[in-house]
Amino acid sequence: MSEQQVASYPVDDTNRVKRRHQRAHYDHATVHALLDSAALCHVSYVIDGQPYCTPTLYWREGTTLYWHGSSASRMLRNLSEGQPACLTVAHLDALVLARSAFHHSADYRSVMAFGHARLIEDQAEKARALVMMVDRLFPGRTAGLRPTTDQELKATAVVTMEIEKASAKIRAAGVIDDEEDYALPVYAERIPVRSVLGAAEPCGRLMPGLARPATLSGFSAGRLLDEALTESYAMSYPAG
Amino acid sequence: MSEQQVASYPVDDTNRVKRRHQRAHYDHATVHALLDSAALCHVSYVIDGQPYCTPTLYWREGTTLYWHGSSASRMLRNLSEGQPACLTVAHLDALVLARSAFHHSADYRSVMAFGHARLIEDQAEKARALVMMVDRLFPGRTAGLRPTTDQELKATAVVTMEIEKASAKIRAAGVIDDEEDYALPVYAERIPVRSVLGAAEPCGRLMPGLARPATLSGFSAGRLLDEALTESYAMSYPAG
Repeated sequence: MSEQQVASYPVDDTNRVKRRHQRAHYDHATVHALLDSAALCHVSYVIDGQPYCTPTLYWREGTTLYWHGSSASRMLRNLSEGQPACLTVAHLDALVLARSAFHHSADYRSVMAFGHARLIEDQAEKARALVMMVDRLFPGRTAGLRPTTDQELKATAVVTMEIEKASAKIRAAGVIDDEEDYALPVYAERIPVRSVLGAAEPCGRLMPGLARPATLSGFSAGRLLDEALTESYAMSYPAG
Repeated sequence: MSEQQVASYPVDDTNRVKRRHQRAHYDHATVHALLDSAALCHVSYVIDGQPYCTPTLYWREGTTLYWHGSSASRMLRNLSEGQPACLTVAHLDALVLARSAFHHSADYRSVMAFGHARLIEDQAEKARALVMMVDRLFPGRTAGLRPTTDQELKATAVVTMEIEKASAKIRAAGVIDDEEDYALPVYAERIPVRSVLGAAEPCGRLMPGLARPATLSGFSAGRLLDEALTESYAMSYPAG
């Protein structure tokens, strides 16, 4: 694919990666793949001049992000034009011990997405979002659950944000030292870090005879979380 | 210890946990233990009204936080009074599949810390911070490295923030359903998620005969990242 054909997010002073810009990516494919490989993000808002950094569950649909937004509800209600926000996802992949303090580092994959956050007020739009909040993680699961009640719908806050700008930053380099430092008698290594699934723990009050659905087989003990989530995402959103 | 003796962060509208307040903790012991069990945080700042949520490495000394602050350098330079910031740490401990969409959830441990961020400009203060940036993770390591150069010191930005307010929020409940829903023929489970260390990968250019230092033995394959980091922290800061 030529460079002209790669869909990318626009770059300006907000999302341009200033430090180590060679690690930066702005194309949809890289940004979206990282967004689809996690369940937990951190969202920043400003309330009365105070920034908040809130961890929450989220998901993506095309260039739109959704997240569970109770903590932001008061701020966002009735603000149909939205509030500036930044949603960030980061994977810590390794701790890196170099031969100098300066080159101690980490391998990581991160995305910062910028836009205007808006509370979903329309009940039908919110009901659909609540289905995807579950089904994005566990494809088809909602169909087997009891219907969500009106009271539950009312009690749930979902925030949406069109991605206006975004950047991904990836370091996957392991140990990098200044050339002259490789001759030093200093031990250096990369310590991998992985988010791994444990063995599923069935609820202790399951009805007799209920087996684990085959649709959950991707969530198997020892599997990498990002792989399981990427696979779920592809099942829930086959068009990408 | 009586309740009066427990050191806690003050609570006001900024850090009071509004939703599921029974999961909230404000005492130093809980907040600090969570802060000391991670290496990666997310920091929020506001620049020209735009919130930024930046992942970075950080550590704690008493009620003071430090982090690597390149991305914030331009904003923070010469602002000795500091800029409002929020530093958040979150561990995703499990995905929780309940019998209703509404009760799908996650087990997690998180901390939000609020204060005013300030760039460290004093060279001696910065040099000491850079030692601890490494030694907090790998106790005593800096002593075996070549000295940091003045140029490296100049090229590194460290931000510090006194914690003015903080809250921890912990969900460790697994599946919780409405009482009447336990009778539904719906499979429900908790899927644990753990950040685990892989086998250390020695640099391919090590000087012959260099063995892995015993001080790194806590970073062993299969170990939980938060346990290894908590242990390192206790060695680097034996007074807590």
